[in-house]
Amino acid sequence: MSDKTNPGNFFEDFKLDQEIRHATPRTVTAGDVALYTALYGPRFPVQSADSFARRLGLRAAPVDDLLAFHVVFGKTVPEISLNAVANLGYAECRWLSPVFPGDTLHTVSRVIGLKENSNKKTGVVYVRSQGYKDGDELVLDYVRWVMVRKRDESAVIAEERVPRLKDHVAPEQLRIPTGLNFAHYDWTLAGSRHGWEDYEPGEKIDHVDGMTIEEAEHMLATRLYQNTAKVHFNQHRQGQDKLGRRLIYGGHVISLARALSFNGLGNAAFVAAINGGRHVNPTLAGNTVYAWSQVLDKAEIDGRSDVGALRIRTLAVKDQPATAFPDKDTAGAYPDSVVLDLDYWSLMPKREKRRR
Amino acid sequence: MSDKTNPGNFFEDFKLDQEIRHATPRTVTAGDVALYTALYGPRFPVQSADSFARRLGLRAAPVDDLLAFHVVFGKTVPEISLNAVANLGYAECRWLSPVFPGDTLHTVSRVIGLKENSNKKTGVVYVRSQGYKDGDELVLDYVRWVMVRKRDESAVIAEERVPRLKDHVAPEQLRIPTGLNFAHYDWTLAGSRHGWEDYEPGEKIDHVDGMTIEEAEHMLATRLYQNTAKVHFNQHRQGQDKLGRRLIYGGHVISLARALSFNGLGNAAFVAAINGGRHVNPTLAGNTVYAWSQVLDKAEIDGRSDVGALRIRTLAVKDQPATAFPDKDTAGAYPDSVVLDLDYWSLMPKREKRRR
Amino acid sequence: MSDKTNPGNFFEDFKLDQEIRHATPRTVTAGDVALYTALYGPRFPVQSADSFARRLGLRAAPVDDLLAFHVVFGKTVPEISLNAVANLGYAECRWLSPVFPGDTLHTVSRVIGLKENSNKKTGVVYVRSQGYKDGDELVLDYVRWVMVRKRDESAVIAEERVPRLKDHVAPEQLRIPTGLNFAHYDWTLAGSRHGWEDYEPGEKIDHVDGMTIEEAEHMLATRLYQNTAKVHFNQHRQGQDKLGRRLIYGGHVISLARALSFNGLGNAAFVAAINGGRHVNPTLAGNTVYAWSQVLDKAEIDGRSDVGALRIRTLAVKDQPATAFPDKDTAGAYPDSVVLDLDYWSLMPKREKRRR
Repeated sequence: MSDKTNPGNFFEDFKLDQEIRHATPRTVTAGDVALYTALYGPRFPVQSADSFARRLGLRAAPVDDLLAFHVVFGKTVPEISLNAVANLGYAECRWLSPVFPGDTLHTVSRVIGLKENSNKKTGVVYVRSQGYKDGDELVLDYVRWVMVRKRDESAVIAEERVPRLKDHVAPEQLRIPTGLNFAHYDWTLAGSRHGWEDYEPGEKIDHVDGMTIEEAEHMLATRLYQNTAKVHFNQHRQGQDKLGRRLIYGGHVISLARALSFNGLGNAAFVAAINGGRHVNPTLAGNTVYAWSQVLDKAEIDGRSDVGALRIRTLAVKDQPATAFPDKDTAGAYPDSVVLDLDYWSLMPKREKRRR
Repeated sequence: MSDKTNPGNFFEDFKLDQEIRHATPRTVTAGDVALYTALYGPRFPVQSADSFARRLGLRAAPVDDLLAFHVVFGKTVPEISLNAVANLGYAECRWLSPVFPGDTLHTVSRVIGLKENSNKKTGVVYVRSQGYKDGDELVLDYVRWVMVRKRDESAVIAEERVPRLKDHVAPEQLRIPTGLNFAHYDWTLAGSRHGWEDYEPGEKIDHVDGMTIEEAEHMLATRLYQNTAKVHFNQHRQGQDKLGRRLIYGGHVISLARALSFNGLGNAAFVAAINGGRHVNPTLAGNTVYAWSQVLDKAEIDGRSDVGALRIRTLAVKDQPATAFPDKDTAGAYPDSVVLDLDYWSLMPKREKRRR
Repeated sequence: MSDKTNPGNFFEDFKLDQEIRHATPRTVTAGDVALYTALYGPRFPVQSADSFARRLGLRAAPVDDLLAFHVVFGKTVPEISLNAVANLGYAECRWLSPVFPGDTLHTVSRVIGLKENSNKKTGVVYVRSQGYKDGDELVLDYVRWVMVRKRDESAVIAEERVPRLKDHVAPEQLRIPTGLNFAHYDWTLAGSRHGWEDYEPGEKIDHVDGMTIEEAEHMLATRLYQNTAKVHFNQHRQGQDKLGRRLIYGGHVISLARALSFNGLGNAAFVAAINGGRHVNPTLAGNTVYAWSQVLDKAEIDGRSDVGALRIRTLAVKDQPATAFPDKDTAGAYPDSVVLDLDYWSLMPKREKRRR
């Protein structure tokens, strides 16, 4: 094998506190936004129309928060997860500055934890990855942990550490985009009249609509993010695998569930943080994805009467409507139909300004 | 069911003269243009090249007229046709100003007619929808009528009216884009030497080529237009339906037929008006679409020696070449192979300037 | 048949030294770049990030060289190859100036050779095609030859000539983009540490990864290039053909192989010339494409210490890994698995600057 191809890192290649500056920088453009719209059909107005965004104090429509996430995430694959057995989780994910067409993104990761598994064949790598725009402005900060194969079972791991991760992002840690003010939010053009005050913890919403995924769609998306994980693209190889099929990038399902959630959460204008997320079953082309959400919490934003934070749990369900809110059981086991369990904070306009 | 999801309007929810300002405003970009090109392969030069458009007096290449139509149309779905049984027709559709990348579109509709059906289960809603750019410049104006379910059969309809619609748009009503002058039209770069003078009413043109539609393609297109009609996206639900398949958005077939019509109507540079259009049979993924056209009429444009109007009827045909010009019979019944019958006005350069 | 549709040129329609100015001019945009990324997943940094390109002296990220090629090539189809039986080869293909979003491309061809086949049914047409941007700046120059049907077997061909074509482009003929200087190349952000000095003639590289092609993908690509060759789009017609399937545009496979080659040739920053290329077997949707490359030669660029030229042969392979480097046999016959044999010059940064 050529020494010039990338074999990826194996578990013993990672060192605690190691910093990895990832390739490939990527200028995000209006072309990416159009493709994102074509792939998922989002209708959140701040990201859809420059004029709507400008009325709220932004310089243009920012790109979808999840598009920025996917690009930042995609860059980490060649060094972090090329030899991953499983993507175990996300935590402490925060958006710190909106991304606009023309911004160039790159990603830097730091290894914050290593824990070998008792079978000595694999270990868990914890990385904090940070996405920057235009060289030095932080736009995204998150932790993920993955189970990675060892190249050599006998390799000894010098130092291990399991990082202490927060169960969820505290609302005080949420960042409101600079200049954003929802006071002049146009509720009619937004398409939904429900503001932050209208949602209550515990409330469940079936997002009603379903969308079937085609092979061409998830591959276009995943390549758009320059995500090179082999399992998404190669049917020849996957055909010899247990499932026999290409696996759909988990982020594709997150974006699809978020777009579907417009029907019921139409004013959840920004994704400000992901508290945690798990892909609990595989999604394959041909599956029809439905979604439902539950409001977990709500929080005031200090000093702001125009915006509040809503903590939402969104579950994506395959090949059955979400009418009955399929969920994990008391033992924490998920039915086969549930493919995603995502816990995030959204920024939502408050209605009170309107009432005055 | 959550009170926060959109159930759509039922027939008894509409009131005569009611005005509906639709969500979601949408900035059209070069990204949308690229996707439109990838989806249909249009080769009309004014919309393909900035330099070609500028030579004719426009500030840049405008987006395809039908792309503007689909975006304006898509916005009306959540309020007008979510509970539609059938899309019955279009009339009096005129393009009033070209749309350029960077323009933000939104749509306002007015209910101009209501007519309950005798079965009391459905009624016909007539709306005039208007697309605006950048807040207040009218770009598109059209009427469509749809059959909509009643929520409650016993609901009494206060006031009914059937609007009088014009059989076709009068050529005097066609709008020439401001600044446009075809005097310096480059016939060679345009790819076709046939101008307005070369077409005669009655003439039939088989556009020869056929194009097969994939599921991924029509769904990408329909989401790009933020059109949320459920029948296009959800195979899980459609599989339980009569046809058992996702239906392709009628506008997708219009765009495909228009792109195919370049071969024979290469200088039909703008769609200026739609006189009427019907989707007479469903189109499904896997179908190969062919098209043929008949020149219905031609008209001078008052005071203009550079441009004329050509009234064209284009029929889209599935899974058989259009060589034999398949058409409705004398009783008005269409063969199963015909999927679209569209009657429109095109603006076409005159050749006489060239001859001097 | 209408006299207004394009029947294409038959062999006897071509004249030696005839010049053909092709339709349709095309403004390339950030939208095309996004689609190109979504279709192939390239990660070459110069084309991915404005900031990376600017650091090297360019005004922005240029579009992928092959995207420019496909657009320039696509324009020649209606006049050159609509009645082609086979696309026989390419030669003397050079990129002369990078294309940036906003540039408008058009193509002019000159017939440089004609040779009737002894069966009198077909003949070989040689054309030199030149792509221009913004009216008059040459961006691409190449020769291709195709076998074209005669309309009338008895037609007499006035004058024949077989042009003498170079076996390969001499390195002195390679053009370095104006302003480009690799001295400040960021090897970490580029994702590969291997520079021009690290490759040696004879070296073989298996690019490891494979990618499966879907019908929607190759059709989106081919329409994006406004390439109208019928065999790519019409399943109804192709179903009656020998293979029974739509054929994938050869250029789609070139782009896919080039994107896969990033894994092993990550710093092959520009395609500067194609010495020759053959599509030796058909590629169909459902095929998984792998690729391997061999370094054929390397050359200094006169007066430059920052950049060198690497001559590379890339073979695309279907439905089997390229681990064993499948190749033509001593008689020149290819195994069924090989679909592309491409010989090109790449521009690659030298590492020596880094060492000082």
